[in-house]
Amino acid sequence: MLLKEKIPFHYTFGKIKYEVMGVLAYSILVWIMYHNFHFVRIAIPLSVPAMLGTVISLLLGFRSNQAYDRWWEARHIWGAVVNDSRTVARQMLCFLDKEYKDEAIEQFRNRFVNRQIAWTYSLGQHLRGRNALQGLEKWLDKSDMDYLAGYTNKPAAMLNLHARDITIAMREGWLNRYQQVELDRTLSRLCDSQGKAERIKNTVFPSTYSLYIHFSLLLFIGLLPFGLIDFFGWAEILVVTAISACFLLIEKMAIHLQDPFDNKPTDTPVTTIAGNIERDLKQMIREPLMADVTMAIREKETFFVM
Amino acid sequence: MLLKEKIPFHYTFGKIKYEVMGVLAYSILVWIMYHNFHFVRIAIPLSVPAMLGTVISLLLGFRSNQAYDRWWEARHIWGAVVNDSRTVARQMLCFLDKEYKDEAIEQFRNRFVNRQIAWTYSLGQHLRGRNALQGLEKWLDKSDMDYLAGYTNKPAAMLNLHARDITIAMREGWLNRYQQVELDRTLSRLCDSQGKAERIKNTVFPSTYSLYIHFSLLLFIGLLPFGLIDFFGWAEILVVTAISACFLLIEKMAIHLQDPFDNKPTDTPVTTIAGNIERDLKQMIREPLMADVTMAIREKETFFVM
Amino acid sequence: MLLKEKIPFHYTFGKIKYEVMGVLAYSILVWIMYHNFHFVRIAIPLSVPAMLGTVISLLLGFRSNQAYDRWWEARHIWGAVVNDSRTVARQMLCFLDKEYKDEAIEQFRNRFVNRQIAWTYSLGQHLRGRNALQGLEKWLDKSDMDYLAGYTNKPAAMLNLHARDITIAMREGWLNRYQQVELDRTLSRLCDSQGKAERIKNTVFPSTYSLYIHFSLLLFIGLLPFGLIDFFGWAEILVVTAISACFLLIEKMAIHLQDPFDNKPTDTPVTTIAGNIERDLKQMIREPLMADVTMAIREKETFFVM
Amino acid sequence: MLLKEKIPFHYTFGKIKYEVMGVLAYSILVWIMYHNFHFVRIAIPLSVPAMLGTVISLLLGFRSNQAYDRWWEARHIWGAVVNDSRTVARQMLCFLDKEYKDEAIEQFRNRFVNRQIAWTYSLGQHLRGRNALQGLEKWLDKSDMDYLAGYTNKPAAMLNLHARDITIAMREGWLNRYQQVELDRTLSRLCDSQGKAERIKNTVFPSTYSLYIHFSLLLFIGLLPFGLIDFFGWAEILVVTAISACFLLIEKMAIHLQDPFDNKPTDTPVTTIAGNIERDLKQMIREPLMADVTMAIREKETFFVM
Amino acid sequence: MLLKEKIPFHYTFGKIKYEVMGVLAYSILVWIMYHNFHFVRIAIPLSVPAMLGTVISLLLGFRSNQAYDRWWEARHIWGAVVNDSRTVARQMLCFLDKEYKDEAIEQFRNRFVNRQIAWTYSLGQHLRGRNALQGLEKWLDKSDMDYLAGYTNKPAAMLNLHARDITIAMREGWLNRYQQVELDRTLSRLCDSQGKAERIKNTVFPSTYSLYIHFSLLLFIGLLPFGLIDFFGWAEILVVTAISACFLLIEKMAIHLQDPFDNKPTDTPVTTIAGNIERDLKQMIREPLMADVTMAIREKETFFVM
Repeated sequence: MLLKEKIPFHYTFGKIKYEVMGVLAYSILVWIMYHNFHFVRIAIPLSVPAMLGTVISLLLGFRSNQAYDRWWEARHIWGAVVNDSRTVARQMLCFLDKEYKDEAIEQFRNRFVNRQIAWTYSLGQHLRGRNALQGLEKWLDKSDMDYLAGYTNKPAAMLNLHARDITIAMREGWLNRYQQVELDRTLSRLCDSQGKAERIKNTVFPSTYSLYIHFSLLLFIGLLPFGLIDFFGWAEILVVTAISACFLLIEKMAIHLQDPFDNKPTDTPVTTIAGNIERDLKQMIREPLMADVTMAIREKETFFVM
Repeated sequence: MLLKEKIPFHYTFGKIKYEVMGVLAYSILVWIMYHNFHFVRIAIPLSVPAMLGTVISLLLGFRSNQAYDRWWEARHIWGAVVNDSRTVARQMLCFLDKEYKDEAIEQFRNRFVNRQIAWTYSLGQHLRGRNALQGLEKWLDKSDMDYLAGYTNKPAAMLNLHARDITIAMREGWLNRYQQVELDRTLSRLCDSQGKAERIKNTVFPSTYSLYIHFSLLLFIGLLPFGLIDFFGWAEILVVTAISACFLLIEKMAIHLQDPFDNKPTDTPVTTIAGNIERDLKQMIREPLMADVTMAIREKETFFVM
Repeated sequence: MLLKEKIPFHYTFGKIKYEVMGVLAYSILVWIMYHNFHFVRIAIPLSVPAMLGTVISLLLGFRSNQAYDRWWEARHIWGAVVNDSRTVARQMLCFLDKEYKDEAIEQFRNRFVNRQIAWTYSLGQHLRGRNALQGLEKWLDKSDMDYLAGYTNKPAAMLNLHARDITIAMREGWLNRYQQVELDRTLSRLCDSQGKAERIKNTVFPSTYSLYIHFSLLLFIGLLPFGLIDFFGWAEILVVTAISACFLLIEKMAIHLQDPFDNKPTDTPVTTIAGNIERDLKQMIREPLMADVTMAIREKETFFVM
Repeated sequence: MLLKEKIPFHYTFGKIKYEVMGVLAYSILVWIMYHNFHFVRIAIPLSVPAMLGTVISLLLGFRSNQAYDRWWEARHIWGAVVNDSRTVARQMLCFLDKEYKDEAIEQFRNRFVNRQIAWTYSLGQHLRGRNALQGLEKWLDKSDMDYLAGYTNKPAAMLNLHARDITIAMREGWLNRYQQVELDRTLSRLCDSQGKAERIKNTVFPSTYSLYIHFSLLLFIGLLPFGLIDFFGWAEILVVTAISACFLLIEKMAIHLQDPFDNKPTDTPVTTIAGNIERDLKQMIREPLMADVTMAIREKETFFVM
Repeated sequence: MLLKEKIPFHYTFGKIKYEVMGVLAYSILVWIMYHNFHFVRIAIPLSVPAMLGTVISLLLGFRSNQAYDRWWEARHIWGAVVNDSRTVARQMLCFLDKEYKDEAIEQFRNRFVNRQIAWTYSLGQHLRGRNALQGLEKWLDKSDMDYLAGYTNKPAAMLNLHARDITIAMREGWLNRYQQVELDRTLSRLCDSQGKAERIKNTVFPSTYSLYIHFSLLLFIGLLPFGLIDFFGWAEILVVTAISACFLLIEKMAIHLQDPFDNKPTDTPVTTIAGNIERDLKQMIREPLMADVTMAIREKETFFVM
């Protein structure tokens, strides 16, 4: 669940390149008009943009807060995916733990745990809008792959496969009735986590909200040069650009945080987390990592991240 | 759970058309009085409206926050409806999964899952204040429709039908005692989601709160032209209108977000979500979509959305 | 769970009548002193009250937020009462659903469901500090009424009666052991809701907090006329009164929201909600509404509301 | 769960007596220097302290919010203690409810319920840092008292006694296996509530946070007289003192709310709540109140409260 | 869960030593330029930095809030670790409580409780990035230590050992099926707490957010001297340094709070809490404390704390 700690400077400011260039052009234009035509009335008291600035910073503050909450909720959800993946694997291991070693149970359990690993990778790809089945044949067998082909929502269908396996295990006498219900509850929690992640993915942050704040911000930037020109002269260009950049950066940051499953570098690192789940679960069933596949996917991840 | 990402400009600003026209007329009037009668004392220091502006933007900030929380809670609730619909269908599929194929169980299960689909459509219509039974005969059989006619709260009555079916299944020996209790718990969660959605629908946002903020906003807009007229002359008209529009838009947005089940374009997309649930559940019981009915309802939805 | 949407103007402003009249008198006094004695030093720069105004609006913002949260939590709790009342009735209906019709079970169940209706009415009256047993004899039989007389906390004692009935039902073989425990859990949730509502009712909002904010507000209103007198002359009286009214209204609104079980028009509509629960539960056990009693209580409610 | 509604004036302001006297002395000193030595440069523009004032009021706002949240969480926790005490007593009454009257069960149950009452008193004293066993011999028998002597954390040890009793009851056949697990869950919730209360008690509010805000506040008060001296002359002394008192009161209030188990008048009223629990539980097992003991403890409580 | 209440002054301000020295140098430079070269145009109106100051204090306020929430959530999680450790030990004690004294059960239980103690120490070291197995041989036997060596995530593997032991106990007939499931649920909660703590540890606070606020703060400090130089002359150096120190301290405090498992003095006191858990659990199984080991670890903790 690691995020690149050092985001390069050019990346950070590259995001608002065009906006800043626009502001620069605009403030130069204002200065030229002021300098050449000596419109005395062009200057306005600074308290007009200052008032707007306070309003906008308040609204940006609340909005950043809400965007942050969405982002943090997404991390919560992926944290729950990690916990419940470990839990379901632990329950599979111990509920099925017979005194004598049983080949069929062993196979059954490994198949289940591998499907759980596949589910986490699949959910990540599903949320990012990519093919949710791609590369999963390493963890899933042929019959599972065929079953999944008939479903639109692949991860949800995998949970149905989990549930079917649990039913089989109970019928075979490997699980008792309490254990079946308990495992089903863990599946319900996994299903909840998926639904919550889909909700964040599919619910657009209220666009009118963003629009109104953006509109107010433009009005503020539009008035700013007229408020500063009297005191700063040509330096107005620098100050206007710097102040506007502050506001634009805060706005942009909120936009980034509010969509945490959107194939952007500041995304929830779903593939990395899935990789950690794979490592822990593989150690539990004492199987080696599907190293190359994971690597391949990780590389793509890196591609996205950079 | 998709919202139209692009809300057309005329729609956004259409919402505050009348208010903005009123502000325009008022600020023109102030300018005419100032220009023709040369009331010197008509101008006031800008810091009076500025102080009010800060107060109002704070209150609007908190209020937007609360409206946003209501809206986001509504999405949470519909997310839970999705999750628990999937869960109840999965439990029906697997708890009833017999080794031998049993026609009676098959019919029973499909009937149950179809009723769950009907419940989600019905709840959406119930929350929007429309006829909660309309168009449901495709998923419900005659006896269910008759039973429901006797109840005021249709979706709540459907959950009772679910519960009755579960009792029948236990009596038949298709479910064991733990599974019955577990399914009943899922019903309790569905019942909770319904109750929560009804709470948001029926609890008016404290109207005194809205009223006081609106009153303060009018006072602010009323004082604003007098604070700006000295510096801007006729340009005061533009600046007053633009600043007022910012505040009015933010207020309007909060009003829209605070009632998320109200037949407005920024509503929770209950029918679309119900459509997704239908798709997933139909795939689970391997039945085709009730395409035309869904389409018909969807069109009405679109009508509302546009 | 409906609140009167239109609160009449005179009601809204009636709340701050005396405060506004005091402010009016005070600002007239200041103007008379300024006008007659020409104390030049009486005027102070507006930024002194402006600074205080910002501080107070911040504190009022946070405080309104906390008051709103209390109010909203109260609604949450009553929402849970609705949900769990429906749930307990559904469980009674279905857990006791025998193949053959059994008179004793029928009676037992209706008695239980009626007691649940009585509990919701009783809890509402208990929270409003009225006699929690008044008018309940329509839903409760004589022995229950006698039992309850011995208890200080009537609604809590009713839950004990519920629990005793559940034990009887298990002893009779009408409920199995899982169902007993599941019903007991629903009782625990009802007990939780009651305890939460009592907590909100009995926990005074920190009075020092209110006091300090009120003290700051008085200081602000006290300084305001001196800051405005220079610019506005006699108009100062109007502006001071209007601005003070804004602040006082916001403060008053927070005071109203913070005590949601206090016999005030902006209260949680406990009797109306209990009426809805009665309607839904009576339809479930196919009994007619106890119409006249309900009406009587509702009228009293209306009396309070208006 | 009642708090004295009227906190006397001298108490409220007594809290900041020394700070206010310090500010008074300081502002008099500034005035004397200004008056006698005519340092013209001593005055600074008001916007310097005004800017600091805005910053500090924001930080104080957030901080009050966090302190309020701690205080409210403490109330939540004690509310849960009330609810779960009622629940555990109800479960004891009904799960053990045999058809024939059994002396041994009766004794067992009363012993358990009395221990639950003792637990609530004990937890309150434990949180306030007093002897957690003092005065409990009225509700606990000799063997319990001896057992508890060996433990550092008395309330936690009482829950172990509860658990031991439940095991005995199951071994005797008074409880079935589901009921044992259900009662154990209620114990887990009581254990959670205790742990949460201990967390709030033992986790100091981040002291660097408080320190930085206090430091900023001193800087603000230090600059304030220089900003006001020009306009107010000797009246500066009054205005500086009043404004500083506002800020100091808000700061002090946050400090009081943030430690809700600290033997202060604004504390969570743990003993009063325990008294209510005793009343309800005693009525349930039809035993008289341990009146004098309770009174004695209540008096001490009053002593603390005043 | 105790934090040093008195953080020494030099520690608090030592954190921003270099920043403050930088600001000092910068403001001296500005004063020298102003004094020697008499750039009249160097002074700007104070409202420019004042506006930035308001914006930044808002953003810092929100950000402190979020950092505080992370810190408080970390405490919540460690509180849950305490509660569930007590719960799992209580369940072990009572679920396994046979009438006759059984040596095997006794050994089994002590082994389990000791492993639980080891788990809390191990989790603390794991979160701080240290060797999660170091010093655990006092509580774990040889076979456990060998098992753990094969796992990357030691605490997660210990929970698997717990689960294996529970399975053994059920197979031996020491636990019934409900008790097994109930204990498994407690393990799931412990697993959740671990996952949540890992999430906070591994999720970097959005670095773009921090960066943008830091950038705005530098801009503000850069403009501040120019806004104050006209009024204060050389005193500008002091005022600029003091105001900047306020802002820098608030920013630094947020940075400290946001990473609560980071080997810093303001950290969550994981080892101290683990020590308390050890004391309570050892008293429950009536074993003496592993005093010297604990002390050793505590000393290291102190080392870190100071």
